[in-house]
Amino acid sequence: MISKREMPEPSDKKAVFERSCCPITNGLDIFGDKWSLLIVRDLMLGKRRYQDLISSPESIASNILADRLKRLESAGLVHRRAYQQSPARYEYILTEKGTDLKPVLEAIAAWGERYYPETMGSAPLSSVE
Amino acid sequence: MISKREMPEPSDKKAVFERSCCPITNGLDIFGDKWSLLIVRDLMLGKRRYQDLISSPESIASNILADRLKRLESAGLVHRRAYQQSPARYEYILTEKGTDLKPVLEAIAAWGERYYPETMGSAPLSSVE
Repeated sequence: MISKREMPEPSDKKAVFERSCCPITNGLDIFGDKWSLLIVRDLMLGKRRYQDLISSPESIASNILADRLKRLESAGLVHRRAYQQSPARYEYILTEKGTDLKPVLEAIAAWGERYYPETMGSAPLSSVE
Repeated sequence: MISKREMPEPSDKKAVFERSCCPITNGLDIFGDKWSLLIVRDLMLGKRRYQDLISSPESIASNILADRLKRLESAGLVHRRAYQQSPARYEYILTEKGTDLKPVLEAIAAWGERYYPETMGSAPLSSVE
């Protein structure tokens, strides 16, 4: 929770933080927006293809979906794999780093269910191992 | 996880969702950005005043801090209380709804610590009851 300038920098480590060295901040630097965790949710629920992801009820815009998938891939949360050549088509799979966000999604879902009980519950998510 | 239009609307309930009736989505509609959960973190760590919040290492801009505090207050996560008159000065306190985000912050911190071990850990947060 100290600023980048105040951070100790041992010679064997090169920690470069965008905003601060708080682990929460660094998580939010990757998925702190209205869409990224919904894409992670969908991938966790078994969706893999662009058309499946774009058909979620939140009506994500195509440019936002493409941007977030690229960012999640670049942060190592999502792996992109070609499932067809000419034309190339890709599917998206969570890496272990992405799958490890399950407790985050579960905690948000539990909070949402508590304070917005008219939401639909997170039963589908809890079926993911 | 169905769209607003497809949602059943029992006459005794008026559930209006901005994007969908998924509890995760409704959580992110409130705090799905790079700043809101950092403000909740700071309030959870005992900060109460604007000047304390703005001095956090992430260097939040004043207009963003004011906007997020207003949104958190409007969503019932934060209570604003005058601690001085003429000129009026306010402090900000988490409500139970805000404090209940602790498991979300802890899950993000645990993920951040696992994948960015050079971050500073979340020891201060875990001292909050």
